[in-house]
Amino acid sequence: MSAPTRRITIKEVAARAGVSKGAVSLAFNHKPGVSDATRERIFEAARELGWAPNLTARSLSNQRVGAIGLAICRPARLLGLEPFYMEFISGIESVLADRSCSLLLRLVRDLEEEIALQESWWKGRLIGGSILVDFHDNDPRVPALQQLGLPAVAVGHPSLTGGLPSVWTDDATAAAEAVRYLAALGHRRIARVGGPDGLGHSAIRAAAFESTMRDLGLDGGRQIATGFAGEEGARATRSLLLSADRPTAILYDNDIMAVAGAGVAAEMGLSVPADVSLLAWDDSQLCRLTHPTLSAMSHDVHSFGTEVARTLFDVINGPVPASHQVPTPSLTPRGSTAPPPRTG
Amino acid sequence: MSAPTRRITIKEVAARAGVSKGAVSLAFNHKPGVSDATRERIFEAARELGWAPNLTARSLSNQRVGAIGLAICRPARLLGLEPFYMEFISGIESVLADRSCSLLLRLVRDLEEEIALQESWWKGRLIGGSILVDFHDNDPRVPALQQLGLPAVAVGHPSLTGGLPSVWTDDATAAAEAVRYLAALGHRRIARVGGPDGLGHSAIRAAAFESTMRDLGLDGGRQIATGFAGEEGARATRSLLLSADRPTAILYDNDIMAVAGAGVAAEMGLSVPADVSLLAWDDSQLCRLTHPTLSAMSHDVHSFGTEVARTLFDVINGPVPASHQVPTPSLTPRGSTAPPPRTG
Repeated sequence: MSAPTRRITIKEVAARAGVSKGAVSLAFNHKPGVSDATRERIFEAARELGWAPNLTARSLSNQRVGAIGLAICRPARLLGLEPFYMEFISGIESVLADRSCSLLLRLVRDLEEEIALQESWWKGRLIGGSILVDFHDNDPRVPALQQLGLPAVAVGHPSLTGGLPSVWTDDATAAAEAVRYLAALGHRRIARVGGPDGLGHSAIRAAAFESTMRDLGLDGGRQIATGFAGEEGARATRSLLLSADRPTAILYDNDIMAVAGAGVAAEMGLSVPADVSLLAWDDSQLCRLTHPTLSAMSHDVHSFGTEVARTLFDVINGPVPASHQVPTPSLTPRGSTAPPPRTG
Repeated sequence: MSAPTRRITIKEVAARAGVSKGAVSLAFNHKPGVSDATRERIFEAARELGWAPNLTARSLSNQRVGAIGLAICRPARLLGLEPFYMEFISGIESVLADRSCSLLLRLVRDLEEEIALQESWWKGRLIGGSILVDFHDNDPRVPALQQLGLPAVAVGHPSLTGGLPSVWTDDATAAAEAVRYLAALGHRRIARVGGPDGLGHSAIRAAAFESTMRDLGLDGGRQIATGFAGEEGARATRSLLLSADRPTAILYDNDIMAVAGAGVAAEMGLSVPADVSLLAWDDSQLCRLTHPTLSAMSHDVHSFGTEVARTLFDVINGPVPASHQVPTPSLTPRGSTAPPPRTG
């Protein structure tokens, strides 16, 4: 990394033009308050120093961040199908709107592409910082972005996010609570339709599911990994409900798969919750709109996005905040969970 | 607008350094192929001219667009609740990913804020062009952005989008087809749960709904305007189904409201479609996951986003393409529509 990586600051431009930083800002924003002659002197100083009012990364003041970055490593089609990311982004946007800051969004194919992208965003002065999501074990983004000096907040359990400041939900505790609730209702055969194996938070939930089942003396808690799409949730549910030792309760990793599961149960002539209990995760409005309404591990995803964005601004403006949790998803029983059938 | 609005080009930097444009690009991308001395000369020329490798708006070559803009004028919470925008964005992203281009996304409160934002994005060289959505009558964005010279593609009927190149769906034809289908099934009392009154495409659908009802000799086709949220769809459905002259068929402006409508019908002990037929719009996976599955005016929103993004690149690279339609939403009958009850 040779080259002019040092950033010219507005302070240097102001000093060269013999004016205040505020005057430089006024001139470049075409606002009144500076004379034509002063404006010209400011423009000349900026040209000489190679400084442009980029509207990005802290260019106009310490507080001024024009955009922050978010790269998501999921197929484009899937992104449109899952309520989680749009709610998460809506939470981020609610913070950005107050700061006249935009979100730079990109879908990437793998983590290497994301690393190169974050580097080009940062070096190209397009962003003041980034939000990193979907952490894996030994995630290569951690060392790469730390070396780059990119202000970042990680969305994921601290065990996955290295030294990056992170915001996380306690997936293990929530998954354990879900299993204990279903067991308390009397269910012995409980299954889980989860996210992809390689994803950190899916793995955390899977491990908690298994260990809680074991603690409760329940064995054979079958788990099926999916890519979060409704159709996959439908397929997994069909497979579970057609098996010889059909589960009497199913825990899903999001809400769209739980909606799909309810559709499959109805299609097979099974009644929810009389024949099979369904428990969703994330709890978007979908869970309250279906009939029966879906019990869920409720999680205010919008507020999660809000907290993540706020934390990123703390990282950017310093001092770097400690990693912290947002509220653990909590059980919201609705119409889709009940004791198992007697013959179960 | 005084000031250094003229953009320094890479060609000028190359000329000043006495090298090719490719060499400038190599130097600024930290790639091999230029000697250290040449690289230094290039950096010096760039500094003198006040040129920075912004990775944005056509900076590295004519084809090179680092980001495009999308401002959405809806409350943040709502954005997360509606499948449309996320599917639309996923379509856009699928085109951007192939071009290493990012999407700059912002929620705005009103069109004036959007105009100021688009201007700052464009003048700050953050974007190579923008996608404009949710057009209103006499939309103030049209003259403002044309004057700015911002490459843009409008998503909306040409009657709303002024001289901007637009990509649109024929909402009037689709709304008429929906009404004719329900009438052909035998329904006489048909209602519509639509979008906001001020929104161009909602108004087009509302007018087509009304005129088709009149053409068919059906009167009293009640329409309720909403903000597209599921809860509003539920409230509107409750109001319709509790009215003295209860409709036997309801057309919705999106799919989440139709899902909500199905939930309300079930909650009121009404059977879908035996007691009331429901017809959704947009047809995300939701319509195929519920039981009964939802009949819908199908519309491939992901492909719509893809076509819009492709068209924007045509606008940027020229010549500016003609306004054109994507396929009209077409009727996909599923389990939620049937002839009205005998007693209807």
